[in-house]
Amino acid sequence: MSELRKDPIVGRWVIISTERGKRPSDWATEPKIKGGGFCPFCPGNEDKTPPEIMAIRPTSEQKDVPGWEIRVVPNKFPALQIEGVLYRKGDGNYDMINGVGAHEVVIETSNHVLDLSDLSEEHIHKVLLIFRNRTLDLTNDERFKYILIFKNHGVAAGASLEHTHSQLIATPIIPKRVTEELEGSKRFYNYKERCIYCDIVLQELKARSRLVASNDSYITIEPFAPRFPFETWIIPREHYSHYERMPNEKYLELARMLKDILNRINNLLGYPPYNFIIHTSPIQEPNLLEYHWHIEIIPKLTKIAGFEWGTGFYINPTPPEAATNELKNV
Amino acid sequence: MSELRKDPIVGRWVIISTERGKRPSDWATEPKIKGGGFCPFCPGNEDKTPPEIMAIRPTSEQKDVPGWEIRVVPNKFPALQIEGVLYRKGDGNYDMINGVGAHEVVIETSNHVLDLSDLSEEHIHKVLLIFRNRTLDLTNDERFKYILIFKNHGVAAGASLEHTHSQLIATPIIPKRVTEELEGSKRFYNYKERCIYCDIVLQELKARSRLVASNDSYITIEPFAPRFPFETWIIPREHYSHYERMPNEKYLELARMLKDILNRINNLLGYPPYNFIIHTSPIQEPNLLEYHWHIEIIPKLTKIAGFEWGTGFYINPTPPEAATNELKNV
Repeated sequence: MSELRKDPIVGRWVIISTERGKRPSDWATEPKIKGGGFCPFCPGNEDKTPPEIMAIRPTSEQKDVPGWEIRVVPNKFPALQIEGVLYRKGDGNYDMINGVGAHEVVIETSNHVLDLSDLSEEHIHKVLLIFRNRTLDLTNDERFKYILIFKNHGVAAGASLEHTHSQLIATPIIPKRVTEELEGSKRFYNYKERCIYCDIVLQELKARSRLVASNDSYITIEPFAPRFPFETWIIPREHYSHYERMPNEKYLELARMLKDILNRINNLLGYPPYNFIIHTSPIQEPNLLEYHWHIEIIPKLTKIAGFEWGTGFYINPTPPEAATNELKNV
Repeated sequence: MSELRKDPIVGRWVIISTERGKRPSDWATEPKIKGGGFCPFCPGNEDKTPPEIMAIRPTSEQKDVPGWEIRVVPNKFPALQIEGVLYRKGDGNYDMINGVGAHEVVIETSNHVLDLSDLSEEHIHKVLLIFRNRTLDLTNDERFKYILIFKNHGVAAGASLEHTHSQLIATPIIPKRVTEELEGSKRFYNYKERCIYCDIVLQELKARSRLVASNDSYITIEPFAPRFPFETWIIPREHYSHYERMPNEKYLELARMLKDILNRINNLLGYPPYNFIIHTSPIQEPNLLEYHWHIEIIPKLTKIAGFEWGTGFYINPTPPEAATNELKNV
């Protein structure tokens, strides 16, 4: 069973996941992706994943068989496990929680060779609604405080399988980065009585120098102080604290924006590995006036991150205004 | 000129370094290290770096010529620049500082084929004293608040040249990770009236399950909640808040410990790329009762970091107790 452990100095929770453990000799070579080899996410191999949680199947009700468009399964090597009563314990200065949570994989299409950005807007829309529906379902489990929704695309971004997929991790703690954003937004709100993200939307629409694209419901910007070259944020124009609590019609516009932005990044940067992460509010919280959900997309272009990890200190060689120009004109 | 920019939500400063800028086409291929090619850090090529700041030369006083053991030069592509008056300014919700600072490179040996861990204890000792002396010198410049001392070893860890070297960056702000450690330590001190790191030293010496090595002045541990497999900390047994303010004799023992630990990591993990970072107090601060300098070493073994960057949420497949066993017995 894995374990959540808290750094006693900065308070950051870490998952120590022995299920995914490796011995030192396994580190010698990098993970390989077998382009033409066996893929457990392809139709016909449904028995190679744990039994499906849900799927979109136009023509059948039978589970774990081909014929699906999108399929959600538990991660075969979960970082956290669904069974068990949550308990906290201490050891001297150290704090820990047993590794209770959920770890699901959203297989975004049955077609092995397509990427998320190749799918139609309608198909991406269904993926985004699955993110919402799985979040709402997991919210019923009061052990869970936060749901991380993210995508690792490409080996360099951490994907271990090339068949396009995203992941949900439900955690019994709130990740440090989320806490920092919540606290930072709250500080601003306490001072100004406004949401900082709403302010950013207005400032970026006015300045335009970091505005990559916009539609009726979203803007996409290169943020003012990006950690990485071509770091890109998609922000709803209206204030919603929770990704899963928007009106129905907002998700189709998001699909349009996401497809447009991923295509721009792919065309400009040559289909780079990337991560996207949905930054949203803790699931058990009421709607928050001070926090505003958004998506952060990080193309994995530089290797210099090693240093940055250790320090939280980022050197970015690409001004966001220059990145915006490139992305706007692609 | 580069610019320091502050994220308006979480307050993290980022260097936007146009001097190191790349155009999108440059991202297509990864940086290459030319094993047998031209090296600007090798003896005979002293004119390919900016004029040296200092060097250890047993037989001569002449600068920028061969005959040195260790050589310190300004970074040719500095993240921050030494000239200029510091000014802060705002733009709506955004804050920035012009890119004033220092960025120096310590070429640890004239021998191109050696790594830091191959050098003698006496030689590493000289490198560590240079870190101290450069810090003390840069402290005289009141524009600088913090000095980051770090090493990127190997391309995957961010090194752009293979000739072994470390770097110092003097910054006009305190990096966020440092602030977090200072604040976390201060919270503990306010509650317990003890230094959390002193507590950790005692707890780890007692538990021994995460103790890799120890000598009269230092312990080396795998921390309780490590972000990465084989993340390793070297902590002085006695309380010193500043790396550069220890008695003379402490640096030779540190050289011994550092060489031992790097050799263990190299032998166990097959000479991985790695980063080490000296975590120390802001240079203009008096000695602090609550903070304790230390070194963090991070072998670059996993690719999964992409996701971790974005969230500050780390999944580590190697329990530190298992890593300790391996490192102890190597």
